[in-house]
Amino acid sequence: MLSKNQLRQVKLLEQKKHRQQSGLFVAEGPKVVGDLLRCGFKPQTVFATAAYENPFGIDCIEVTPDELRKLSFLQHPQYVLATFCMPKTSEVTEPRGLCLALDGVQDPGNLGTIIRIADWFGIDTIYCSQDTADAWNPKVVQATMGSIARVNIIYTKLTDLLGQTSLPVYGTLLDGEDLYSKNLAEEGIIVMGNEGNGISAEVRQLVTEKLFIPCYRKGDTAESLNVAIATAITCAEFRRRK
Amino acid sequence: MLSKNQLRQVKLLEQKKHRQQSGLFVAEGPKVVGDLLRCGFKPQTVFATAAYENPFGIDCIEVTPDELRKLSFLQHPQYVLATFCMPKTSEVTEPRGLCLALDGVQDPGNLGTIIRIADWFGIDTIYCSQDTADAWNPKVVQATMGSIARVNIIYTKLTDLLGQTSLPVYGTLLDGEDLYSKNLAEEGIIVMGNEGNGISAEVRQLVTEKLFIPCYRKGDTAESLNVAIATAITCAEFRRRK
Repeated sequence: MLSKNQLRQVKLLEQKKHRQQSGLFVAEGPKVVGDLLRCGFKPQTVFATAAYENPFGIDCIEVTPDELRKLSFLQHPQYVLATFCMPKTSEVTEPRGLCLALDGVQDPGNLGTIIRIADWFGIDTIYCSQDTADAWNPKVVQATMGSIARVNIIYTKLTDLLGQTSLPVYGTLLDGEDLYSKNLAEEGIIVMGNEGNGISAEVRQLVTEKLFIPCYRKGDTAESLNVAIATAITCAEFRRRK
Repeated sequence: MLSKNQLRQVKLLEQKKHRQQSGLFVAEGPKVVGDLLRCGFKPQTVFATAAYENPFGIDCIEVTPDELRKLSFLQHPQYVLATFCMPKTSEVTEPRGLCLALDGVQDPGNLGTIIRIADWFGIDTIYCSQDTADAWNPKVVQATMGSIARVNIIYTKLTDLLGQTSLPVYGTLLDGEDLYSKNLAEEGIIVMGNEGNGISAEVRQLVTEKLFIPCYRKGDTAESLNVAIATAITCAEFRRRK
């Protein structure tokens, strides 16, 4: 049985302010909830319908499908919705291996997809500028399909980070060199920019290796690639060379 | 000044049934509307605010920003919304060069992104199974960012198409060979499957070249890639080899 207060507490977590105050975020469905539990995230409250298999044997508050629909942020709720404690704001670690840095990515779906791509390509850390969408937004968490449990997300001032690193800083820019003919190091930071404006002027100055994804459409049209698609193509090429 | 009937006619075009009856679809914003006009699509009715620059000098019905908001399918309407005539249902042409075939892609955002990827990689034709989302849905049209003007979309029975072609049929499957070590022809059909279930059993039997995008995350977790991301990585590798 779901109380009004429980419903309200969950719904408040749509807002960043309330996530920060409570230190909690929402995850839904057996896949995402399961990945978080498997990776050691601590659940606070778990709401589940009778049909949830509960493979980890966690304590659940049983709710009806109708109550789950009220709690859920999804069009099609999936058996379970849980609030989890956000990981402690980690200190900004020195970049190692291959990392991503996101400079103002705004769309929650794009951010979630990029976290999923990072996971697939074995990229452990994503540095985000302060004006990048919040990774603990329910839409982002769902779009990661559980990958948020395996990738460290660190919000920081990118100019400080990139100004201090000794690693090469890659960025896709219009005046870059063909991704497929350029030397790519095994370690480095790949910067991806905002959906409309690309990489900001200050961050662009810190890009040491400019890349360009070649377009194969002939003609004078101005196509572009979605930022998540560009991230995937770039990460795939770094890993292919390895 | 916008009439009630005009508003109603536009809103009906959210439904496939009404798009098919009227032969019309909706496009919004200077970029998408501009790309369609440039490629010879015929506008039926164009609604625009006074701020629209109208670079093609087409006849517009002037509406207020408030009226445009009522007409629009977007969260942030952009100066212009137009209805266009759908291209005549083209006969199913013999596949040539590099093509895509979509087997039950359901999400309008994924379909739109895939059309945009095809455009970038110079792929002229996408064959869609009848249960793939409708490309003239306003959400798909917007997600293509204008690319729908440059890519032919043909709905057909994929088993007939793939059963008759002499081109290699590529599909990403769990038991496929590493995309990066397999021979890839310059001509062929790349099949991408449904978001949840992948390529259907009947179509899978017609795949002659099985591919697998390698995962670089170590461990026993079951990650996956979004279908649009998998399409981008596969198309990029075909074009890189060319």
